[in-house]
Amino acid sequence: MRAGEAEEAGEAERTGRVFLTRVLEPGDPVGGRWLRQFGVRETVRRLREGGEPPPGVSGTRWQGLLARAARADPGADLAAAREAGTRFVCPGDTEWPAQLDDLGDERPVGLWVRGHPGLRMWALRSVAVVGARACTEYGAHAAATLAAGLAERGWVVVSGGAYGVDGAAHRGALAADGATVAVLACGVDRPYPRGHTALIDRIAQQGLVIGELPPGDQPTPNRFVVRNRVIAALTRGTVVVEAACRSGSLVTARAAQRLGRFTMGVPGPVSSALSAGVHELLRGEAVLVTDAADVVELVGEIGELAPPRRGPVLPRDLLAPGTAAVLAALPAGRPAGPGEIAREARTSREDAVARLYELRALGYVERHDDGWKLTRQGVLPVLTGPHPP
Amino acid sequence: MRAGEAEEAGEAERTGRVFLTRVLEPGDPVGGRWLRQFGVRETVRRLREGGEPPPGVSGTRWQGLLARAARADPGADLAAAREAGTRFVCPGDTEWPAQLDDLGDERPVGLWVRGHPGLRMWALRSVAVVGARACTEYGAHAAATLAAGLAERGWVVVSGGAYGVDGAAHRGALAADGATVAVLACGVDRPYPRGHTALIDRIAQQGLVIGELPPGDQPTPNRFVVRNRVIAALTRGTVVVEAACRSGSLVTARAAQRLGRFTMGVPGPVSSALSAGVHELLRGEAVLVTDAADVVELVGEIGELAPPRRGPVLPRDLLAPGTAAVLAALPAGRPAGPGEIAREARTSREDAVARLYELRALGYVERHDDGWKLTRQGVLPVLTGPHPP
Repeated sequence: MRAGEAEEAGEAERTGRVFLTRVLEPGDPVGGRWLRQFGVRETVRRLREGGEPPPGVSGTRWQGLLARAARADPGADLAAAREAGTRFVCPGDTEWPAQLDDLGDERPVGLWVRGHPGLRMWALRSVAVVGARACTEYGAHAAATLAAGLAERGWVVVSGGAYGVDGAAHRGALAADGATVAVLACGVDRPYPRGHTALIDRIAQQGLVIGELPPGDQPTPNRFVVRNRVIAALTRGTVVVEAACRSGSLVTARAAQRLGRFTMGVPGPVSSALSAGVHELLRGEAVLVTDAADVVELVGEIGELAPPRRGPVLPRDLLAPGTAAVLAALPAGRPAGPGEIAREARTSREDAVARLYELRALGYVERHDDGWKLTRQGVLPVLTGPHPP
Repeated sequence: MRAGEAEEAGEAERTGRVFLTRVLEPGDPVGGRWLRQFGVRETVRRLREGGEPPPGVSGTRWQGLLARAARADPGADLAAAREAGTRFVCPGDTEWPAQLDDLGDERPVGLWVRGHPGLRMWALRSVAVVGARACTEYGAHAAATLAAGLAERGWVVVSGGAYGVDGAAHRGALAADGATVAVLACGVDRPYPRGHTALIDRIAQQGLVIGELPPGDQPTPNRFVVRNRVIAALTRGTVVVEAACRSGSLVTARAAQRLGRFTMGVPGPVSSALSAGVHELLRGEAVLVTDAADVVELVGEIGELAPPRRGPVLPRDLLAPGTAAVLAALPAGRPAGPGEIAREARTSREDAVARLYELRALGYVERHDDGWKLTRQGVLPVLTGPHPP
């Protein structure tokens, strides 16, 4: 195959995956099995051409899939997304977070991404903070404090963008000039819940808003549940802050457990029904955490010392030019705030923060409270780290 | 040795132990070693006769012990105690709780006991509930609710008689017509703290007040600390309800852990300094519990099904006459309250409750909320259980 053909094949596969986000429900293991067995292009061909339902798929379900396939227009979706500042990231892309591969046949077909930072780099050092929508003042306070503390330690806070604990966690990270990612159960152009439109827009500006569903798609109860596996798989660990028994956050926590991620819980009063689910979790495998230091002590165990499992190493001179400029803008021997670094690197504050978290994941810089400073590795002229987005 | 001689020897050993509670500090491992190596009577003889200090004991310390020995008058102590309704229980007595032997050289020389119930029987099915003196409303509420729940499930609540969590636990058990034991760090005739005089008197009436120190002795900071090992050893497990970091309750919990007892903690808000010690414990070996059902699920694991480790079995016709009368007073096929049972058995309500908890430990009766009823074993004419007091 000549280079042009390979590129064309790659483009076809990519358009095929965009098409599949319209046709398959997120996390559908049957679709995942087809992809594994037949590949993207053959799966797309079968859904486009119709014919008899494959073994194990009912006629009604197959007709539903074919009807969705008939309506799908991946070219238009990509164009509209580009217009709205949204990109499509899928397996094989350098920005694809390889830890999602742990989901096996339930791996997302691809992710729609709003925001500047590279998803792969950010996800390397991320923790999920999730919990009850109808949380108490205590839960909101605990989530915001925890998220701010994680941000101050250079960790990315991932949550679901919902009311209650999720929102408090995103806000806590943003307020600490930190990095946060909202994983939605609907199209990333269609913030849900409506009341969080401003918050989700702000996350897209300062962080990332991602989701499996194509532009315009609405959330459904099932989509919230399957979305949780993405939060669990993307992060090093999941912290549950307030959850009633049978809460959706417990689904995320159990998914994290199954995936070999750390599962943590913030305790609360035993008299509070909104802590009962967390306490149930803590009586099982989950670890009790009371603050960001506890979380980092646990999830940082491996990552603080060892390089991430996957991806080639990155010599410093292969950093993206904008990221190299931010690295060069850090003064030697003292910490600097993101404002100063942004001015020095001639970029926006948001862009500087996004790149600082990437450099953090690569081991070049560290965050201490409000300042960023070079690590020993960042001071040295040429060194190695994992692959960039 | 003739029977009369053996009895005389037993009496001498008993008087010797009374003497030793005056001379040795509770839990002194050096004294414990002497007792193990030389026996009670030889240890007493050496302390009475003076002479050179034994190896490893400084001259000053030895002089202090000899001065105490010169003042000790075990005969007078026993007479005064008898007068005050207090008895002396020591290793070898049928009322001695054998689980204290797990303390090795730190085993109490003996225990002074105020109250009617048999200590050994009660301790078989007991749980310690301990915590901060300066507890919050939340801690007091949690302790009282937990203790009441344990009492309702037929468990004996052991604590230290202090302000805060201890007092709330005792009160919770008493309020549920339950069984409770206060382990003091001073003479049992000298309730401490003073503000708990009425509470401790009530415990002595409805339950048991016990301690290692002879009549009239005062508590000291060290005596509080060493007292905690008795609480830990006596019970199946220790629950900590609110404790700041470095709290004395954590000493009890760690002693319980070392002794192979269950260690449990009631979580609280992460924003509360009075829950920080408990959370520290829960991040270690302790198990999170939210109510009495959680506790019983854990500590009852062995005991609910299997007989206790030690002691001969007890045919029903060897029950003490008063206890047999209470057992006979239980109606068949329905639960009855302690008032009704007491009337039927022609005894006081306190006496009936005390004997019901003994029968509970023997497996003859069960408590369900406010009523007591016969177990299958209690209905059958002759059956076996562990040794009575």
